Amino acid sequence: MADKIRVAVIGCGYWGPNLVRNFQALPEAQLIACCDLDKAALARMGQLYPTARLVTDVTALLADPDLDAVAIATPARSHYELTRAALLAGKHVLVEKPLAMTSAEACQLTELARAQGRVLMVGHVFEYHPAVHYIKTMLDAGDLGQPYYIYSTRVNLGRVQQDVNALWSIAPHDISILLYLLGQMPEKVTAQGARFLNGRVEDLVFLALTFPNNVLAHVHASWLDPSKARRLTVVGSRKMIVYDDVADEGKVKVYDKGVYRKGDDIYGEFQYRVHSGDIAIPRIDMTEPLRLECAHFLECVREGKEPRTGGEDGTRVVRVLEAAQASLDAGGWPVGVT
Amino acid sequence: MADKIRVAVIGCGYWGPNLVRNFQALPEAQLIACCDLDKAALARMGQLYPTARLVTDVTALLADPDLDAVAIATPARSHYELTRAALLAGKHVLVEKPLAMTSAEACQLTELARAQGRVLMVGHVFEYHPAVHYIKTMLDAGDLGQPYYIYSTRVNLGRVQQDVNALWSIAPHDISILLYLLGQMPEKVTAQGARFLNGRVEDLVFLALTFPNNVLAHVHASWLDPSKARRLTVVGSRKMIVYDDVADEGKVKVYDKGVYRKGDDIYGEFQYRVHSGDIAIPRIDMTEPLRLECAHFLECVREGKEPRTGGEDGTRVVRVLEAAQASLDAGGWPVGVT
Amino acid sequence: MADKIRVAVIGCGYWGPNLVRNFQALPEAQLIACCDLDKAALARMGQLYPTARLVTDVTALLADPDLDAVAIATPARSHYELTRAALLAGKHVLVEKPLAMTSAEACQLTELARAQGRVLMVGHVFEYHPAVHYIKTMLDAGDLGQPYYIYSTRVNLGRVQQDVNALWSIAPHDISILLYLLGQMPEKVTAQGARFLNGRVEDLVFLALTFPNNVLAHVHASWLDPSKARRLTVVGSRKMIVYDDVADEGKVKVYDKGVYRKGDDIYGEFQYRVHSGDIAIPRIDMTEPLRLECAHFLECVREGKEPRTGGEDGTRVVRVLEAAQASLDAGGWPVGVT
Amino acid sequence: MADKIRVAVIGCGYWGPNLVRNFQALPEAQLIACCDLDKAALARMGQLYPTARLVTDVTALLADPDLDAVAIATPARSHYELTRAALLAGKHVLVEKPLAMTSAEACQLTELARAQGRVLMVGHVFEYHPAVHYIKTMLDAGDLGQPYYIYSTRVNLGRVQQDVNALWSIAPHDISILLYLLGQMPEKVTAQGARFLNGRVEDLVFLALTFPNNVLAHVHASWLDPSKARRLTVVGSRKMIVYDDVADEGKVKVYDKGVYRKGDDIYGEFQYRVHSGDIAIPRIDMTEPLRLECAHFLECVREGKEPRTGGEDGTRVVRVLEAAQASLDAGGWPVGVT
Repeated sequence: MADKIRVAVIGCGYWGPNLVRNFQALPEAQLIACCDLDKAALARMGQLYPTARLVTDVTALLADPDLDAVAIATPARSHYELTRAALLAGKHVLVEKPLAMTSAEACQLTELARAQGRVLMVGHVFEYHPAVHYIKTMLDAGDLGQPYYIYSTRVNLGRVQQDVNALWSIAPHDISILLYLLGQMPEKVTAQGARFLNGRVEDLVFLALTFPNNVLAHVHASWLDPSKARRLTVVGSRKMIVYDDVADEGKVKVYDKGVYRKGDDIYGEFQYRVHSGDIAIPRIDMTEPLRLECAHFLECVREGKEPRTGGEDGTRVVRVLEAAQASLDAGGWPVGVT
Repeated sequence: MADKIRVAVIGCGYWGPNLVRNFQALPEAQLIACCDLDKAALARMGQLYPTARLVTDVTALLADPDLDAVAIATPARSHYELTRAALLAGKHVLVEKPLAMTSAEACQLTELARAQGRVLMVGHVFEYHPAVHYIKTMLDAGDLGQPYYIYSTRVNLGRVQQDVNALWSIAPHDISILLYLLGQMPEKVTAQGARFLNGRVEDLVFLALTFPNNVLAHVHASWLDPSKARRLTVVGSRKMIVYDDVADEGKVKVYDKGVYRKGDDIYGEFQYRVHSGDIAIPRIDMTEPLRLECAHFLECVREGKEPRTGGEDGTRVVRVLEAAQASLDAGGWPVGVT
Repeated sequence: MADKIRVAVIGCGYWGPNLVRNFQALPEAQLIACCDLDKAALARMGQLYPTARLVTDVTALLADPDLDAVAIATPARSHYELTRAALLAGKHVLVEKPLAMTSAEACQLTELARAQGRVLMVGHVFEYHPAVHYIKTMLDAGDLGQPYYIYSTRVNLGRVQQDVNALWSIAPHDISILLYLLGQMPEKVTAQGARFLNGRVEDLVFLALTFPNNVLAHVHASWLDPSKARRLTVVGSRKMIVYDDVADEGKVKVYDKGVYRKGDDIYGEFQYRVHSGDIAIPRIDMTEPLRLECAHFLECVREGKEPRTGGEDGTRVVRVLEAAQASLDAGGWPVGVT
Repeated sequence: MADKIRVAVIGCGYWGPNLVRNFQALPEAQLIACCDLDKAALARMGQLYPTARLVTDVTALLADPDLDAVAIATPARSHYELTRAALLAGKHVLVEKPLAMTSAEACQLTELARAQGRVLMVGHVFEYHPAVHYIKTMLDAGDLGQPYYIYSTRVNLGRVQQDVNALWSIAPHDISILLYLLGQMPEKVTAQGARFLNGRVEDLVFLALTFPNNVLAHVHASWLDPSKARRLTVVGSRKMIVYDDVADEGKVKVYDKGVYRKGDDIYGEFQYRVHSGDIAIPRIDMTEPLRLECAHFLECVREGKEPRTGGEDGTRVVRVLEAAQASLDAGGWPVGVT
C-alpha cells in the first residue's frame, strides 16, 4: 500500500460529494477518482477538486491496481452488486446504508469481505456522532436508570425516492442508532405507512419496535413533511434525554426528570411524585460525524481492524428493515425479527 | 329556568377549577356550587369564589331543584354513573372526555339525554379551539389539496393516572380532533403501548389510524416525557399545516410546500419537483377554548340546541378508543372500528 | 387590626385585576373593595369577585376605618397624590412603579410613610421573581466571576401610553433589576429615544448606564415592537447568564463560557482562549412573582417590617429615571446620577 | 486578460478560506494562489486545493503579470497598505471591511482605483444577502409604511480582536446594512462601549444612529456574549420585519402589525388601536451571500463596472465608524457625521 490510502468515490449525486470532500481533507487519504454515470455531477466535482480523475466506467476503475479503497454512495438497490464487485477486485469498501436489500445478500457480502481479507464498512454515520456517543455513555453508565422507551422523528421535505420507500431510505439511521444504544435486537416490529406521490413506495412510515426487557422504541420517517426534524428522545427511569440534531444551541439536553412512587402499594393505589429538576446541556464535540466515519474507515484499512459498523452491524440493520417491510406489506401486523 | 343558568361543577381536582373559573366569569351563568369529596379542594374553591356553595354530597346536590346544569370533571371511570344520575335528575350535563368507558354506555347516555329532553355535551375542548377551526376551514375549502396524513404529539411529564391509561386519558383529544377535521371514522386502528410506572396501565401509546381514501393518522400520547408538546401536523397534497399549541408566536403555520410530478410517467419513472414557498402564520383568535366551550353549553341549554360535541360525537370517540384498546391488548394487531 | 388584613385595590384597568386576583387568593388578606372611575372595569371585577365592594369614590374609600391597606395601580402621574392621600389616611400602601414622577416627591412619600408609621412598598415585581433571585445569588457568590456587563430587552406591541414615555412606563422594571443585581447606583446614564405615534412621548428608548468598577448596562424598552421579548443577559468574567422570561423551558440558562488570557503579555500581545463548556438550566420555582410580592406586602404590614422594595428603593429608581430623562431631553448627552 | 479571471487570496486565517472556497467553485475564476505569512494556514489550503500556489511573499505575488485580481482578508489595519500596493500593481481588489481605518485613506484608495482603472470593491457581504435585498425591496415599495426605527444585534463568543475593537470589527456589517436600507447617512451617532479582556480595545459597543426624518437606528455588537445572535428588526408605520440570520426556518418574518390612531385628537388625547394581523415568512433564496459577492466582483472586473459596494460605499461606512469612535472616546457624547 502506498503512503496514503488511495480512495475513489463511486456515486457523486446527493451524498457522494460529502464523502469526496472529507477524503480530500483527510491527510491519510489520497482522493484519486470520482465515478458517476452523470457527467454533470462529475463536472461539479472537477471544478472543486481539479486533481481527481473523473471516470464513468466503474469496471475499469475497480481494475486499477493503484486504487486501495472505494466509498459507494449510489442508489440503494445497487449497493450489493457494486460492493461485491469491489471486494472481488480486492478493494476495501465503505458503502452507504443500507448494506443490501436483503439480509441474505448482506450476510454474503460480510462473508466475502472476510474471505478477501478486506475491510467492509457500512456508512451508519450516526454511530460516529459525538451526541449519540454521549447518550450511549450515559445509558451504559446507568445515569438514565432503566431505559423505558426511545422515539425518533426524522422527517423533511424532499429527497423523494422512487426505488426504495421511506423505511429503507430514511429509517436505517434510526434503526442503527437504536441497536447501538440498546445493544440488542428488537423482538418484533410493526410498521404503518402510506403511498401518496407515485403509488409504488411508502412516502412515510411509522415503526414500532419491541425490545427485550419491556423497552419500546418508535420511529417516524418521512420525506413529505413541512419541516426538517431529527429528534430522538430517550426516557429512562431516572433521567431523560432529548437529542435534537437541528437545534442551534443544545443538541443534547439531559433532563433530571422522572416520576417516582411514594410509599407502598396500599389498597391497590400508589402515590406518585413528579420530580422536575435541572436541565443540563453538555458541551458536545462539533466534529462532523462523516469526518470521523471516514477517518475510522481509513484507520481500519491501515491497521486491518474490523470497523465499528462492519458487515455484521449492517446486516443486523437489514434484518430489522426486512421485518418492518413484512409488517408494512401486511397492513401493520406484528412481525418477529429473526 | 331562572334568568341565569344555575350551574354546579362536580369534581374540583385538576380540570374542574378551570370550569369553575369560566362559569364564574360568564354572565349567562350563575355558579351556585362546587362539589368534591376532597375538602381541601373545596376549600381552595371557597377562597377564590366565596359565593359558591361547597358540597360533598352529590346526591343531595342533584336533588336541588334550583340547579339547572352540572359540569362533571371527575375521574373517567365515574363519568357514566354521574352523568346518568344527573340526567335522571333532570339536569343538563357537560361531562369531561371520555363520555364513558364503553360505547354501549355512551350510547345509553346519549339516548337517555334525548328521552329526558336534556342537553348532553362532552368536553372535547379542542373542537372549540380557534386554531382547530382554522385548520378545518382550510381543509374543507380544499386549500390543502387532498389530505395525505395527520400526526399528533401530545406528551408531558405528569398527570399520571392509575385507573385509565394514556390512551383513555390523553388520546381522546387527538381522536376528537381527527374525527372533526376529517369528518369520518377510521376503518382500523393499531396501538402500541408500554407500562412502566405501576405495571397496570400504559404510560404511553402510539396509535395509527387508517381512514378511508388512503388517509393515515398517527397519535403519540404520553405522560412520561421530558417536555410538553402539543403539536399536530396536517400534510396535504398542496399545502401543509403545523399547529403547535405550545408555541408563543405562530401556533398555526401554513406551509406552501409540496412535491409535484413533472411531466409524464416515461419508462416507469416520474420526475418530482419540491416546491417550497412562503410560510403564513395567520392571526388566530386567542379566546380560551374552554370559555367558548362553556358558552356553547350555556347557549345549547338556553336554546334547547344539540351541542356540536353531543352524545353522538362523544360516542364516536369512545368507539375508536375501544378499538385501540383491543389492538393494544393484542400487542398491536390491527383492529377494525365497528 | 382585624384577623385578616383588609385590602382595597385602586385602579382596575390593566394591572389592577392581577392585584385583585392575588389578594383574593391569599388567605392572609381580605379583599374588601375595588375602586376605579371606569364603571365597566368595576363591573368586570364584580362578575369575578362578587364579595368585593365596587367603589368609584377614592376619598370615601380611604376614609373607611375598616380598611387597612391599599394597592394602587393607577396611571403613573397619579401615584404621588394617591399614595400621599392613603398614607395621610393611615393606610399601608403598595404602589405600582414608578413611585413618583420626581425624586423629590418620592423622597417626600418615603418620609411621610416613616412619619405615619405605615408600610410604603413599590411594586418592583421583578425583585420578587425567583429567576432574578437566582441570578442575584450567583452574582453574590462570585459564580459568574467579575460582572462585565448586563443588557436587557423589554419590548412588546401595545400598552401604548400617552402621559408617560417608554422610559417611565417600561424601563423601571429593568432599572430596579439592575440596581438589585449590582447593589449600587450607576454613575451616569445616556438615553436615546424617538417619538412616532403621537409626537409627545417616546415610544422606545435605548438606555446605557455606567456603573462603578467598569460595569456597563444597557436597556432597550419599547411598546412598538413586532414580538414580545423580556430578556436579560449577564456577562461575567467566568460565566454568563441569559434570563428569558418568555421562554417555555429554561427561563434561566447558565453558560459555562468565557474568554481567558493564555500566558503573559509578550511584545504587547496576549493569547486568548475561548472556553465553551456546558449550559445549565436550573429548576426555578414557578410561583407567580406578583403572588410573592403581595404576600411580602402583607407580611410587612403584619409584622411592621420595612419592605425589600420600600420607599428608598423606589426613590433610587426614580433618580435614575430622572437622569435618563435629562439625557433623552438633551439628545443623548451623558448625565450624572445624583 | 485570460479566459478566466486569475485570482489570489491574501490572508488565509479566519475569513480568507471562505473566499478561497468560493473562487475555486466559481467557473469564471481561476484560483491561482493563496498567500499568508502563516505556513500552517497555507498548508491547510494546500490540502484542500492542491492546484493553488502557496506563497508567503505578497510583493512577489503582486508582481506576477499573470494575476488579474486579489481578495484581501488580512487584519483590518493592513487593508490600506495592501489595497494600495495591489492597485498600484494594476490588480483589481476585493478587500474585506473596513476599507481603511480613516476616511482619508478610504477616499485615497477610491481615487487611486479610479486613476488606475481598476475595480475596488469592499466585502460588505450583507449587501449581497437575499434577505437584506428582500427588506430593501419592501422598504422602497412602501410596504412597511414610513420607517420608524431599526435595531440590530450582532453578538457572539469569540473572534476576539486585539488591534481593533468591536466597533471596527463587527459593526461595519450593521452600518453597511443600515446605509443600504435607508439610502442615506446618519446625522449623528453616539457610542458606548467597555474594555474587559485586554483593556485596550472595546469588547462590545452600543451604537445609536440618528438619521434624517426622525429615523432612529441602534446597533449592539459584541464578541463577548453567551449566544450567537444576528438579528435585525425594522419597525415601520404599517408593518414590521424581523430578520434573524441564525433561524433555521423563517429568517425573515413580516409582521402585519402596527398601532394606529383612531379618530381625532380631542381634548389632547388620541385613541390608539393595536393591529396584530398575520405573519408572513417569505421564501428567501438560500444562495450563500459570499458566493453572490464574489460573482459580482468577477462580473465587475469582466465588464469594467462599478461595484455595488465600491470605494465610495466603503468610505461612507468608514465615516460613520470614525464618528462612532469619536463618541466612544468621549464617553458617549453625540458626534455629528461629516
